[in-house]
Amino acid sequence: MKAVVIATGDELVRGAHVDTNSALVARALAGLSLECERFVVLGDDEQALVDELTRCLREGVVAIVGGGLGPTLDDVTRAAFARALSTTLERDMAVDLRLRELFVARGREYSESNARQALFPRDARVLRNERGTADGFACERGRALLVALPGPPRELEPMLRGEVLDLVRAHLARHAPELGVARTAVFKLSRLPESRFADLCGDWMARGRNPLVGVTASLGVLTATIRARGRDDAEAGTLLGAQVREFRERFAEWIHAEGEVELETLLVEELRARGATLALAESCTGGMVSARVTRVPGASSAYLRGWTTYSNESKSDELGVPRDILEAHGAVSAEVACAMAQGAARRSGARIALSITGIAGPDGGSAAKPVGLVWLGLCVDGVARAHERRYLALGRDLVREFATRDGLWLLLEAARGLGPVPMLAPFLVRDGGQGAT
Amino acid sequence: MKAVVIATGDELVRGAHVDTNSALVARALAGLSLECERFVVLGDDEQALVDELTRCLREGVVAIVGGGLGPTLDDVTRAAFARALSTTLERDMAVDLRLRELFVARGREYSESNARQALFPRDARVLRNERGTADGFACERGRALLVALPGPPRELEPMLRGEVLDLVRAHLARHAPELGVARTAVFKLSRLPESRFADLCGDWMARGRNPLVGVTASLGVLTATIRARGRDDAEAGTLLGAQVREFRERFAEWIHAEGEVELETLLVEELRARGATLALAESCTGGMVSARVTRVPGASSAYLRGWTTYSNESKSDELGVPRDILEAHGAVSAEVACAMAQGAARRSGARIALSITGIAGPDGGSAAKPVGLVWLGLCVDGVARAHERRYLALGRDLVREFATRDGLWLLLEAARGLGPVPMLAPFLVRDGGQGAT
Repeated sequence: MKAVVIATGDELVRGAHVDTNSALVARALAGLSLECERFVVLGDDEQALVDELTRCLREGVVAIVGGGLGPTLDDVTRAAFARALSTTLERDMAVDLRLRELFVARGREYSESNARQALFPRDARVLRNERGTADGFACERGRALLVALPGPPRELEPMLRGEVLDLVRAHLARHAPELGVARTAVFKLSRLPESRFADLCGDWMARGRNPLVGVTASLGVLTATIRARGRDDAEAGTLLGAQVREFRERFAEWIHAEGEVELETLLVEELRARGATLALAESCTGGMVSARVTRVPGASSAYLRGWTTYSNESKSDELGVPRDILEAHGAVSAEVACAMAQGAARRSGARIALSITGIAGPDGGSAAKPVGLVWLGLCVDGVARAHERRYLALGRDLVREFATRDGLWLLLEAARGLGPVPMLAPFLVRDGGQGAT
Repeated sequence: MKAVVIATGDELVRGAHVDTNSALVARALAGLSLECERFVVLGDDEQALVDELTRCLREGVVAIVGGGLGPTLDDVTRAAFARALSTTLERDMAVDLRLRELFVARGREYSESNARQALFPRDARVLRNERGTADGFACERGRALLVALPGPPRELEPMLRGEVLDLVRAHLARHAPELGVARTAVFKLSRLPESRFADLCGDWMARGRNPLVGVTASLGVLTATIRARGRDDAEAGTLLGAQVREFRERFAEWIHAEGEVELETLLVEELRARGATLALAESCTGGMVSARVTRVPGASSAYLRGWTTYSNESKSDELGVPRDILEAHGAVSAEVACAMAQGAARRSGARIALSITGIAGPDGGSAAKPVGLVWLGLCVDGVARAHERRYLALGRDLVREFATRDGLWLLLEAARGLGPVPMLAPFLVRDGGQGAT
């Protein structure tokens, strides 16, 4: 048994809106161990939807349709269902009454087009929409289950997670008991290319395997999902547990989190758990690390303050970077990165301070300091260390994103390694350990 | 002639990633007056892709496939093309050489699986990927044109906008000359709800109209696209020109830009054109405005420096906000917003300074100062003014996004209104004009 997710709307096939409903539906169905065969996005085109629904009936799948239940003529879903199911549309008098009362209460006229929203295929089960006037409906034909939901995500999502999942669960129990129950675990990994991850997984990622490992990569962070299926929750749990233990062992050096959690959330948690404080001094990233850290509710208890110091003058004025260091080494250098981090720590009194200074492009590069060169300075308990990164010059946005990610990563490592007693003498070390001042 | 956009990847049908490529492709094709019939999202399933490609060949459409060109076994696109086209895969020796050299230069082994990326359907035209190892390809069969592109958007997009659009344009000229030529204009509008925009447009948005107006909304900014079709460029241009004039007139009070341009780009351009300088002091947005401004290449010539001042202490230390004002009015107040902006201007010497202080949530709200309350302070030539916003409490991220947008918007208005001579006496005014100090 498979699922098909269908989204309708001219604005979708024109590319004006991105269809996010289908991914949402797929994730919800995966919790019932039902996999999606395909998503199909159609315009407000009745015949195209009839064709797709007919195919779903023939294949005997669970099909979830989002959109096309509004009151206007370009809302074609209910008519397409009736045609594909060879049945008629009939008025549901309870829904009609509810809508009529709703319109009266809002002082609006209940027109003929509004009344279309009380029409449903003859034997459909009506799915109540608590957040709008477009109720959904479901029709069963043997192994096939066709469900229509309204398009707006804030209406679709609660209906999906409520009545629809119950309905699909019951349908699967009758028609596909072999699917059983699924349980899932998520890991976040860093510093591991996706291809190397796949190599290390071996057959864990083979299609149809149980448990199955999947992975997605975004800006160098891998999100690995392990899904185990069993006849019941206990069996799925046992399978998942065994796989999770093996996974932890094999990928220990790259796992930085278990669960769907962002780097900045881990960082703030670590800092708060240790009562440690943070300051940030950003040049080329211009506040991106700061914006990420402050996404986390409660960041204020650890994050003291931040600076965006683009010019040399601001680096001196705000962070006390000595002008002779700026002149001798240039703003993008290990020395300035360290001085920025130390200045941020000193001015704020934070135990940990991060600085970022680099050449994001598109201009400003040279042979010695090409676009993509970034120095990150990390000052922990007064001790500063500079880290060099040479990113591919894939555009200003990406260089900045990479530097932001690496900054957060350095901070997380530093927070995790915080000893209880601060060291005192500040000095400056490059990556690899050559001392300098 | 229609188009079909196909996206492949298990991570897509599992719902782990949202397919944004298809909308991007649809918008690009619309520029050639080619409309999309459907999007199809498939897993890494060779047979499903063969079936879909076979259908596209039968229908005689332009099909653009994104994804599945990687080096691993679950990358099935090239094999599916060969099967659907009843041809073989052959090694392109020029591509093979380029890949081999690329791997050698990076000190990595060029393995058998990497070498798969030099395989293409026999008569395919290879589409060079400048940003990765997965070259694309295109195959023509009568009216049908099948194109394969790599999945990562930063690789797909430049290839699409370059070689692929040229290819499709030439294909349409041969096989669908009735589509003619399309020309497009884009407007950015603010402070206008999407539904009111639609009402004001009247039949300009009606399906099949020429010229056709479309709109998308994101965080309160509308992007309106006008597309005119003609037999040739001159006819399309005439139609477009007439519609653009009417559009400018009807929407004059809401248009803030013509063309696909971001608020921050307009802002930096305005500042640079006037030789004006900028400083930022952010509390609840934590560096988001700063991160947006520094996205623009050359921002450094106008943007002097920024602060993230989360705590009361940092507002006093860094920006000189008087402690008694903080105590009397609280950090989220008109008075503190003005003092922050004035402090940022004073310390940096910038002509324009913006401050943002608010309650992003989820906690920290009260009856008098609920979650969603944000004060923006704008200081121009020493004169500060505070602007109150009460956003719906739609979550921390959205409150911060709204405040960032409004901050950029205030800055743009201020930059556009900059007179040549700075005024001198700083004072403080709330929205509406009640004086205060």
